[in-house]
Amino acid sequence: MVSTDPADLEDHGFSVNDYHPGAMHSVVVFPGSTEDVVQIVKVARKFKMPIIPYSGGTSLEGHTRGHETGGICVDLSRMDRILQINEADSDLICQPGVRWADINSTLKEKGIPLFLPLDPAPGATIGGMISTGCSGTNAVRYGTAKAEWFLNVTVVLPSGEVIKTRRRARKSSTGFDTTKLFIGAEGTLGIVSEATIRLAPLLPTTVAVVQFPTVRHATEAVREVMNKGVGIQCVELCDDVFMQATNKFGMSLRKWPEKDSLFFKFQGHSQESLQETARVVKSVVEKHGGTGFELARNEQEAEDLWADRKNAHYSGIALLEGSKGWPTDVCVPVSKLPELVYETKKDLAESGILSTIVGHVGDGNFHALLLFRTDEELEAARHAVHRMVKRAIALDGTCTGEHGVGIGKKEYLVEELGDGTVELMKTIKRTLDPLNLFNPGKLYPDEPRPKGRNQ
Amino acid sequence: MVSTDPADLEDHGFSVNDYHPGAMHSVVVFPGSTEDVVQIVKVARKFKMPIIPYSGGTSLEGHTRGHETGGICVDLSRMDRILQINEADSDLICQPGVRWADINSTLKEKGIPLFLPLDPAPGATIGGMISTGCSGTNAVRYGTAKAEWFLNVTVVLPSGEVIKTRRRARKSSTGFDTTKLFIGAEGTLGIVSEATIRLAPLLPTTVAVVQFPTVRHATEAVREVMNKGVGIQCVELCDDVFMQATNKFGMSLRKWPEKDSLFFKFQGHSQESLQETARVVKSVVEKHGGTGFELARNEQEAEDLWADRKNAHYSGIALLEGSKGWPTDVCVPVSKLPELVYETKKDLAESGILSTIVGHVGDGNFHALLLFRTDEELEAARHAVHRMVKRAIALDGTCTGEHGVGIGKKEYLVEELGDGTVELMKTIKRTLDPLNLFNPGKLYPDEPRPKGRNQ
Ligand SMILES: Cc1cc2nc3c(=O)[nH]c(=O)nc-3n(C[C@H](O)[C@H](O)[C@H](O)COP(=O)(O)OP(=O)(O)OC[C@H]3O[C@@H](n4cnc5c(N)ncnc54)[C@H](O)[C@@H]3O)c2cc1C
Ligand SMILES: Cc1cc2nc3c(=O)[nH]c(=O)nc-3n(C[C@H](O)[C@H](O)[C@H](O)COP(=O)(O)OP(=O)(O)OC[C@H]3O[C@@H](n4cnc5c(N)ncnc54)[C@H](O)[C@@H]3O)c2cc1C
Repeated sequence: MVSTDPADLEDHGFSVNDYHPGAMHSVVVFPGSTEDVVQIVKVARKFKMPIIPYSGGTSLEGHTRGHETGGICVDLSRMDRILQINEADSDLICQPGVRWADINSTLKEKGIPLFLPLDPAPGATIGGMISTGCSGTNAVRYGTAKAEWFLNVTVVLPSGEVIKTRRRARKSSTGFDTTKLFIGAEGTLGIVSEATIRLAPLLPTTVAVVQFPTVRHATEAVREVMNKGVGIQCVELCDDVFMQATNKFGMSLRKWPEKDSLFFKFQGHSQESLQETARVVKSVVEKHGGTGFELARNEQEAEDLWADRKNAHYSGIALLEGSKGWPTDVCVPVSKLPELVYETKKDLAESGILSTIVGHVGDGNFHALLLFRTDEELEAARHAVHRMVKRAIALDGTCTGEHGVGIGKKEYLVEELGDGTVELMKTIKRTLDPLNLFNPGKLYPDEPRPKGRNQ
Repeated sequence: MVSTDPADLEDHGFSVNDYHPGAMHSVVVFPGSTEDVVQIVKVARKFKMPIIPYSGGTSLEGHTRGHETGGICVDLSRMDRILQINEADSDLICQPGVRWADINSTLKEKGIPLFLPLDPAPGATIGGMISTGCSGTNAVRYGTAKAEWFLNVTVVLPSGEVIKTRRRARKSSTGFDTTKLFIGAEGTLGIVSEATIRLAPLLPTTVAVVQFPTVRHATEAVREVMNKGVGIQCVELCDDVFMQATNKFGMSLRKWPEKDSLFFKFQGHSQESLQETARVVKSVVEKHGGTGFELARNEQEAEDLWADRKNAHYSGIALLEGSKGWPTDVCVPVSKLPELVYETKKDLAESGILSTIVGHVGDGNFHALLLFRTDEELEAARHAVHRMVKRAIALDGTCTGEHGVGIGKKEYLVEELGDGTVELMKTIKRTLDPLNLFNPGKLYPDEPRPKGRNQ
């Protein structure tokens, strides 16, 4: 299927979640198979048209924005089938357009006690998750898309050739793993048209919440908890502003103290082991000044509590009537997180910007959602994000822990990774895509070096 | 330091653990710093001499063999310092020549309850572990070198340029991760001169052993155990021949039933949770026909038991007086492991080859050690390994789960990965090392395509 309907072009080129510059696509095509993708790439090569892969459309840094010369947006969302579930091997084979949330609900329906623990936005799909190198709340226990969840990928290269990077064994040492080249490549090195995914055992979980006097207390508690070896699946830092938003707009009926808080998800093989974990965690957090430790009393309560956390984006925006939110993420070594959070909150306060902060604190990763209503406030938010990124890099961190680079973060790569590493990335890009047709203008810093931000 | 002492040249070029063809190095040099490595690369470029990196020398597939035209062996074992331990971030920075075993004993001495869970041969070093994409018994819990243990690497590229791939944050989505290019590259894309490594919390462990009627029973028990969500750090399959070798030459005083067995290492936050895990595992394995489940009664017993497993190589060789052993490893989807083991054992029996089999069964990975005394028996072993690899690939597996390719497995890459993927690997190699100076003749299949084996 092919569409030039302006609504489709707009939808695919512009995201409601980011405010980066860009243009409209010329056309959106909806392949149904790897072979279709190959045909599209051949046409694009013939007419030297940019190709912009698209699937869930939940990325946050202008990843799927149109190119100024126009181009073909390849929407993979119709390639959304699970092709094979190998329960005995804890893996499955699927097309790139399937959502992780649908994979998990399909497994549940079929009574297969396995799941994919990578959990970005519920609308995110396998192709997009591979291409952004995503992670989420479960990463503290299960690692990110860059770990070993993707056993192999089938990719249509810019040459039009189709490769499958590996076989289905869980481990292989046949040289450097070309699967990893496509994880985080943001559609610039090829189009993922199939993947084999490893799954984890689905375990009983429950949720607890606790408040702290300061972010530093919370971070130190997390470090000690993580070293205990009890079953922690997630540990999320939610700041006072976020708790305020949740009290106003959240799902759970409880009203929370509006203080910096930790949301824990425990996992274990039995209810007793969950209770044991809760006991251990409670004693550690109380040692670090934690108060009001509350464990969900039942599954529904746990789900509601977790929904409050997952709802961050929307309850955040609801805080300021008529506002939009600029979401951003940075990541630093865990010990630097308190410093980064304090300085950022101070900066935001001084700039008069209202923002929630929620963090995957076990990994030193946090998200801020900067609220704005006017163009002027948007500019202020843009500048505050810039300062936040600079601060993270100065603390030996990264401009993005999980959202990826797209248009929004590409100007920071040289400072963060150094000239040589960026040049290596560009060399690989040029070698695989000499015509520069695959998602041009994304990920790699512009040349000559950017003079200002977001240019 | 530089050496042309024939003993050094021999030592560095030929391993006692493999029987692949190759030549002597011209010289062995021992750099002390990244800057030294750069100078060596410059000299090599000037004289167009091959460079063969070397550190622990424990690799098993002719990885550090000399090149036919001569070349410079770069021995990194003197760059063996731990530069920084960041306990609060659970990471450390070190030079490439430090052994994982020394990292772990240093942490222990300092009373820091963290460890690096990658556990190949005790003599293996960080540079070699990165370059082979190693793993070991802990991989079933912690993943392999290809997971997220290496936060960044500093590499001297074939151009002589030095890059550092990432910063110290645990997660980053700044495009595809160039760290991963060097994991498994076997020294063909650059020399790793420093690394930042993530560490895991060190937890109490204990060991248990149980026997099974067949490998299939054992494999199915493992699958069910792994899905329980109890604390399994390792689960190793040891076949009847291996148990026989252990009874004769092992460390522990116990005499084991000479049957296919599983060695478990449990981990937990307390003695009670270890006991609980033992209880859960015992009931699962007994359901699958497991008998004689024995839990170590104390730490010493656990250590002895585990030493028996780790000692596989040496007790295996001791089985047949005057023999040597050809070690090999393959890996398949876990559900295919029983078939692979049965057919391999049948083949070995028919060929009159004595061999132990020990497997990282949770990952579908197994090692065989084929014993031989004469040149004729060596040839028979070589052919049996060839058939084993073909069998593994036919089962959607890989020619090497962890040992790597070196000289010994390069002929299988096209069959396993396909022409396109191998061509992609070679393209990257050519782009980074256009003079083909870095460990030439290793990893990449020869061109024109090999006509026979090991040519
Ligand atoms: C409310 C909300 C919460 C979020 N939370 C998280 C979070 O916790 N963690 C996290 O990591 N991210 C999070 N994100 C960001 C987003 O969900 C992730 O980046 C996700 O991985 C994007 O997947 P997608 O399918 O939507 O990709 P898209 O937005 O469609 O595309 C993303 C990139 O991948 C490329 N691409 C897409 N499909 C393919 C393909 N088949 N082959 C090659 N390239 C392709 C595109 O060109 C683009 O560059 C969140 C977003 C929202 C809106
Ligand atoms: C008894 C025994 C048990 C083993 N068990 C396991 C196991 O359980 N799991 C497993 O994975 N392996 C195992 N191995 C194999 C071996 O230990 C691993 O492959 C290990 O990772 C090799 O590390 P090394 O330091 O000895 O590397 P070396 O043998 O010195 O080199 C290995 C490769 O890396 C390259 N290299 C070395 N240093 C660098 C550097 N700084 N930069 C770039 N390239 C470099 C070399 O050129 C070579 O290609 C075992 C080996 C033995 C003898």
